[in-house]
Amino acid sequence: MTPFTYDLLATDATTSARRGRFHTTHGVIETPIFMPVGTRATVKGMTVEQLHELDAHVILSNTYHLFLRPGSDLIAEAGGLHRFMNWDRAILTDSGGFQIFSLADTLKLSDEGVKFRSIIDGAWHFWSPEDNMRIQSELGADIIMQLDQCPPYPAEREFVETAVRRSAEWAARCKAAHTREDQALFGIVQGGVHADLRAESAERLAEIGFPGYGIGGYSVGEPHDLMLESLGPVCDLLPKDRPRYLMGVGNPTTILEAIALGVDMFDCVLPTRTARLGTAFSSEGRLNMRNARFARDFGPLDPKCVCSTCTQYSRAYIRHLVNTKEMLGAILLTHHNLHYLLDLTRQARAAIEAQSYGEFLAQWRSSPASNDY
Amino acid sequence: MTPFTYDLLATDATTSARRGRFHTTHGVIETPIFMPVGTRATVKGMTVEQLHELDAHVILSNTYHLFLRPGSDLIAEAGGLHRFMNWDRAILTDSGGFQIFSLADTLKLSDEGVKFRSIIDGAWHFWSPEDNMRIQSELGADIIMQLDQCPPYPAEREFVETAVRRSAEWAARCKAAHTREDQALFGIVQGGVHADLRAESAERLAEIGFPGYGIGGYSVGEPHDLMLESLGPVCDLLPKDRPRYLMGVGNPTTILEAIALGVDMFDCVLPTRTARLGTAFSSEGRLNMRNARFARDFGPLDPKCVCSTCTQYSRAYIRHLVNTKEMLGAILLTHHNLHYLLDLTRQARAAIEAQSYGEFLAQWRSSPASNDY
Repeated sequence: MTPFTYDLLATDATTSARRGRFHTTHGVIETPIFMPVGTRATVKGMTVEQLHELDAHVILSNTYHLFLRPGSDLIAEAGGLHRFMNWDRAILTDSGGFQIFSLADTLKLSDEGVKFRSIIDGAWHFWSPEDNMRIQSELGADIIMQLDQCPPYPAEREFVETAVRRSAEWAARCKAAHTREDQALFGIVQGGVHADLRAESAERLAEIGFPGYGIGGYSVGEPHDLMLESLGPVCDLLPKDRPRYLMGVGNPTTILEAIALGVDMFDCVLPTRTARLGTAFSSEGRLNMRNARFARDFGPLDPKCVCSTCTQYSRAYIRHLVNTKEMLGAILLTHHNLHYLLDLTRQARAAIEAQSYGEFLAQWRSSPASNDY
Repeated sequence: MTPFTYDLLATDATTSARRGRFHTTHGVIETPIFMPVGTRATVKGMTVEQLHELDAHVILSNTYHLFLRPGSDLIAEAGGLHRFMNWDRAILTDSGGFQIFSLADTLKLSDEGVKFRSIIDGAWHFWSPEDNMRIQSELGADIIMQLDQCPPYPAEREFVETAVRRSAEWAARCKAAHTREDQALFGIVQGGVHADLRAESAERLAEIGFPGYGIGGYSVGEPHDLMLESLGPVCDLLPKDRPRYLMGVGNPTTILEAIALGVDMFDCVLPTRTARLGTAFSSEGRLNMRNARFARDFGPLDPKCVCSTCTQYSRAYIRHLVNTKEMLGAILLTHHNLHYLLDLTRQARAAIEAQSYGEFLAQWRSSPASNDY
């Protein structure tokens, strides 16, 4: 039925890490992969040329924000997101559910759908799963996500139970309402930190059947270890021949740990947001470029990095730019941070192909960079 | 003595427009030329790759701002401005005089020099012409400007007279204190809108002798026509075998009118600043991209422009970016606006070579674009 296939190319010798390939209408996504976030149809501060230079296979955009501004109807009129933003590789849109639940002061939730107020003008909007599919179909991304209910942490078990049941029902309704054959619809596993609820959610979604699965409801405030503890069993319950996408996770160490558990795709605003705050990922751990110790440091940002920021500019220059709030500071750090995570997943892919992901991860854990989680 | 030569390649048939070539340690500057402003060792929002793509021959940086942050000593330690900001073509630094006189609440001015307070921390600093030369020598630009006194408009004639006399004396002291043979020191003509004072200033500077001449004290609030009226005679009084740089002027029409009077070089923050405010130069005149009429305009920003913004993105997309305050909006508009002025001076050079600058200017004056002055 669907043109979307996932090729499982290799499984690591000692971990559950997988090397795969997901085919979309706009090119192949090599997995494991990090997906830069372009909230409002732009990865903040990056030109499309820079995204190509970074070799981003797929970028993410947010349905909630695009629905409010400029409107999904306008983007459809422009010929879809790819044409609107001039990006010819793959795009993934989330459903907007996460933003509704995390940004809204007030919302009215029922099995039918969710009523919420715009963060821009306070206007009320109602989305059923069917409405959401129509909106994402107008946006025209290659991968779209089901509308789901994402509970916060901590939350009452009963609340999470309802979210799991409702999300599964909405998954079925999204699948029924989904029409565009050039879009792959992914279901989303919920269940918080409850192993049995996660299992129930994964099983119900697998029964409905999707070309890929999101793993949602993590990185919402729960302890780090608790996430990694419950993540492995979730992966084990999902179909082996479909990609698994851990939503909203982007710390270097967490990405590598999750890959070892069988996760294939990641997205997070962390690299771009921390860059705008003047912070860089590095082989020496996170660097705050406002720090006075960099004022006369004429060496590269990260001596082990080969990106165009690290090969062309000094820490002293970047500190000057951050210090004087110059746009170029955010631009250079964004480029570096995205390169860092894309390169990390490139290295992970190579390690899995070499059947040595276990050693690769062990080496990482003992490096100064691993403090970034 | 100086390695800096200016080749006068052609003079226009019917106007005073000149086609020239100024040789610096970091490459040739083809004139007439527009110089993008990189106030704090960065052209706001542009990567060095983008500046190369724009074929900027020379960029300007501000001594006042760099002296305060990160400090000229730090830049000297980095190996100079070129290495600090990774720019291998020509750089011009102003003296900082303009910023001292326009930004300062309090200052103490005497023939010896100027005492001023930092806009950052209020600390007092004193610059003699000799101090200023030392600072600009630390920065290491290819073209440096004398310290001068730039009177505002309107100003009492007596005040302007003093400024002319003092600036000429400072010009001589700057020349005496100037040591680096790889830096060309330009004198600066003052005199406000008084033809006789301008003439006196030009003559005194020409007597001292410089490899190039700045024309300062314009675009400080005087009526537009008054500037163009007095500019021609100033150009006529300056040596023909030296480039003439009209400081701080960057409106498309004013640039073209000034070229007809014999000006060779221009700089202004206008293209970059207006870009960050969401405004574009265009063949249709200035466009405010916040305007609702662009919301569903899927055509290019300027249909007559071949820059990477105009060939890749729609007005609707740019309006969306500006409207949502996305960095990419400022980046794309900055790129376009700089391309627009650089292309305008490219066209001017071609017209002078073809001995048809008069017709070129007449055509411009009758186009909708000429409303931008």
